[in-house]
Amino acid sequence: MNNDSSSRIAARLREWIAGASPGSRLPSTRSLVAEYQASPVTVQKALQSLTTLGLIESRPGVGTFVRAVRTARPADYGWQTAALGSPQAPPRSASSTMRSTTNDVIPFHSGYPDRDLLPERLVRAALARASRSDAALSRPPAPGLPELQSWFARELGASTPVGVTPPTPSDVIVLPGSQSGLSSIFRALVGHGQPLLMESPSYWGAIHAAAQAGVRLIPVPSGPDGPDPEELARAFETSGARVFYAQPNYANPTGAQWPARRGEQVLDVVRRNGAFLVEDDWAHDFGISTTPVPIAAHDESGHVIYLRSLTKSVSPAIRVAAVIARGPARERILADRAAESMYVSGLLQSAALDVVTQPGWQTHLRSLRHQLQSRRDLLVAGLREFAPQAHLERIPNGGLNLWARLPDGTDLEQLTRDCESAGVIIAAGTEWFPAEPEGPFIRLNYAGPNPGAFPEGARIIGRALLRQAR
Amino acid sequence: MNNDSSSRIAARLREWIAGASPGSRLPSTRSLVAEYQASPVTVQKALQSLTTLGLIESRPGVGTFVRAVRTARPADYGWQTAALGSPQAPPRSASSTMRSTTNDVIPFHSGYPDRDLLPERLVRAALARASRSDAALSRPPAPGLPELQSWFARELGASTPVGVTPPTPSDVIVLPGSQSGLSSIFRALVGHGQPLLMESPSYWGAIHAAAQAGVRLIPVPSGPDGPDPEELARAFETSGARVFYAQPNYANPTGAQWPARRGEQVLDVVRRNGAFLVEDDWAHDFGISTTPVPIAAHDESGHVIYLRSLTKSVSPAIRVAAVIARGPARERILADRAAESMYVSGLLQSAALDVVTQPGWQTHLRSLRHQLQSRRDLLVAGLREFAPQAHLERIPNGGLNLWARLPDGTDLEQLTRDCESAGVIIAAGTEWFPAEPEGPFIRLNYAGPNPGAFPEGARIIGRALLRQAR
Repeated sequence: MNNDSSSRIAARLREWIAGASPGSRLPSTRSLVAEYQASPVTVQKALQSLTTLGLIESRPGVGTFVRAVRTARPADYGWQTAALGSPQAPPRSASSTMRSTTNDVIPFHSGYPDRDLLPERLVRAALARASRSDAALSRPPAPGLPELQSWFARELGASTPVGVTPPTPSDVIVLPGSQSGLSSIFRALVGHGQPLLMESPSYWGAIHAAAQAGVRLIPVPSGPDGPDPEELARAFETSGARVFYAQPNYANPTGAQWPARRGEQVLDVVRRNGAFLVEDDWAHDFGISTTPVPIAAHDESGHVIYLRSLTKSVSPAIRVAAVIARGPARERILADRAAESMYVSGLLQSAALDVVTQPGWQTHLRSLRHQLQSRRDLLVAGLREFAPQAHLERIPNGGLNLWARLPDGTDLEQLTRDCESAGVIIAAGTEWFPAEPEGPFIRLNYAGPNPGAFPEGARIIGRALLRQAR
Repeated sequence: MNNDSSSRIAARLREWIAGASPGSRLPSTRSLVAEYQASPVTVQKALQSLTTLGLIESRPGVGTFVRAVRTARPADYGWQTAALGSPQAPPRSASSTMRSTTNDVIPFHSGYPDRDLLPERLVRAALARASRSDAALSRPPAPGLPELQSWFARELGASTPVGVTPPTPSDVIVLPGSQSGLSSIFRALVGHGQPLLMESPSYWGAIHAAAQAGVRLIPVPSGPDGPDPEELARAFETSGARVFYAQPNYANPTGAQWPARRGEQVLDVVRRNGAFLVEDDWAHDFGISTTPVPIAAHDESGHVIYLRSLTKSVSPAIRVAAVIARGPARERILADRAAESMYVSGLLQSAALDVVTQPGWQTHLRSLRHQLQSRRDLLVAGLREFAPQAHLERIPNGGLNLWARLPDGTDLEQLTRDCESAGVIIAAGTEWFPAEPEGPFIRLNYAGPNPGAFPEGARIIGRALLRQAR
């Protein structure tokens, strides 16, 4: 009964509101009670329903008012166009790999591993412990929690050959994710308007960070064995660059892993040019048939700036990474971090350290290796059977992605749309090129959800490719 | 006995190591057992003690080696000096306000409230809930958790007068702390080499962020009632600046709160110049005798970029803030955030939202207000009694700090040292000036630990000032 009378009152008030101007004050609850001969609760219910509809708003202690309707007066932000001018870097649209999707598609586009591949039990336990600890209410030192700095230094130190001085904990700066590290490194070591060498293709996030830092990108072609050392040397000479950004292990997107010899050659070129190698070891925990050895482990002279993230292997909620750098370069990067964000949440640092120092972490990494292998093989087999036009230059020894070259002339936009309308999300390779793409490529993530659907996903890609061949 | 024999073995091995070159391989455990006629446990203990001393290192499965001693070969990073060149912005040393101190000093220097002033119970419960939720393992959308965006929009909307269109949730971008917001806003809306108007004195973090973004800082003098509108108008005209950064409520360091009329005048000047006001509402939760009303609440035309942080009032471990911006400016800032860090930990966002939507949060804020009041009054009384030379231009209506002008000619470095040697840490005002300081100032935080020692702290400052007057 009450419901009916509150609806009746609401309907009458809506008529009144329609004729009133925005900002008009409604009669008080008391007078509405009298007018409609209803209980205060019923009147409140009517007012509540109108508030939910966005028609009125109440200001405690003042009264209830007719709300200004947004659509009645479209906002004009035209003046901002003059104030902002054109952007200093050409705008890059947000990466398609960051798109959220629903459960009913096969998502090959994402850059992240599926939740099934995360150490859920370790993460929850670590966060619960951290929330009871001091870390929940305190501020860690700017470079990071000392224990976590030590862990990162020890991890890299464990790969350091005898005779090479391993990094110390104070060489480590903890970061809120490796993306922030890229931005800081490019700002601090390259600087606005200065040249930066980068593999092509390369990680789109690094391309975005470089654009944001306003540096001048110089692509260095990189194949399945990494860049050609002579080509790299030429690029250093002609550009005057002092920094080369690369992913020597399981490069994103290609999956390339430089042979040890190539790593040494590149490091030699970098040294001879008095330059830095920014080594982005993004897939350190994602080895499948090999175990990655960072080039940084062979450097004690401060030429390698080493970037290592835990976000993808621990949890996207625990955004913790580290940069290991020696000498003045480390000071420059730390100063940039201080200006950018001062410090990284001690809670996240403490939880990250907890996860990676549990015995269960090593068990998890071993099981992850097997899962990645079977997922990779499943997708490779699917593509070979159902989409033979997609050429895989190499089967990656680690990482999360396959990189496929499509027949020349493939219309990537059309292909992406065709796949999507059939429930498969793919990422066009264009985003991974710092300059014009060398051809039509797609990147396929085999670490996404529902590997059982991989063959079906490959079949859909194959059909979409066939349609273009006609 | 075992201990003795392991020490004996260790001593003999040290002699051997002293004569060996770095990288030499030690005899195997088995042969050491035979050589010293000791048990494997005793030999292991000896090796362990040498490892702890950093003299040897073991590589599992390979052997034990003499470690390269760091001091034997000092690292030479001289080549980096050439590679890095001079910094693009003059280096600013880390702020003295970020110094960690021990428990036995009176710290007036910090920018953060004491742990006693944080909602500890709410924070721990929220983090525990978040660690059991989906947020512990998932990645939120780039602009933020929708529910948290709504909360920030609603909070500002609650101050919006009738007739002004309140912000929508999609105007909100969640940030990992407001410092990151400053950096992004300056990069996105001002840009490298372009002018930025800023109150003087102003927040040192903003000065650092501006330097990092490579913008050209133009100080606008600001008194207890904020900047003079005519002076601001002149600064816009002569510089061609399109952005003015300010803290209208409880400015850091001065504690100034602009009267409502002044806020309108400044907003008028900003509008007439087709410019942005970056309103840093850092102390929104720290009102004492007034309740802050953001200038942003009076703007629907996108002229005010509103920055609001929860880090200081919720917990330094929950680094969550938001920028509210409308129109193309919002897109520019979001693109910069995406390049800088992609997204903010959903766990921290979820915990922050949990804290501020608990009924206990309002109770906490009320009690905080009383605690800040009594702390402020205690420090003011102490200074008046024991350090009358420190002139307080105003007693702030909110915020965390007192700003005191000292007698002309005061040697701030000497004063800081004298106070420190007597156990009181103060922050020299120099850091808060974008250009030359107008005089000798100090900032004293009354939200630090141990308010009972405030009178004693004031006495020590007074004595140090007296020493300079002699």
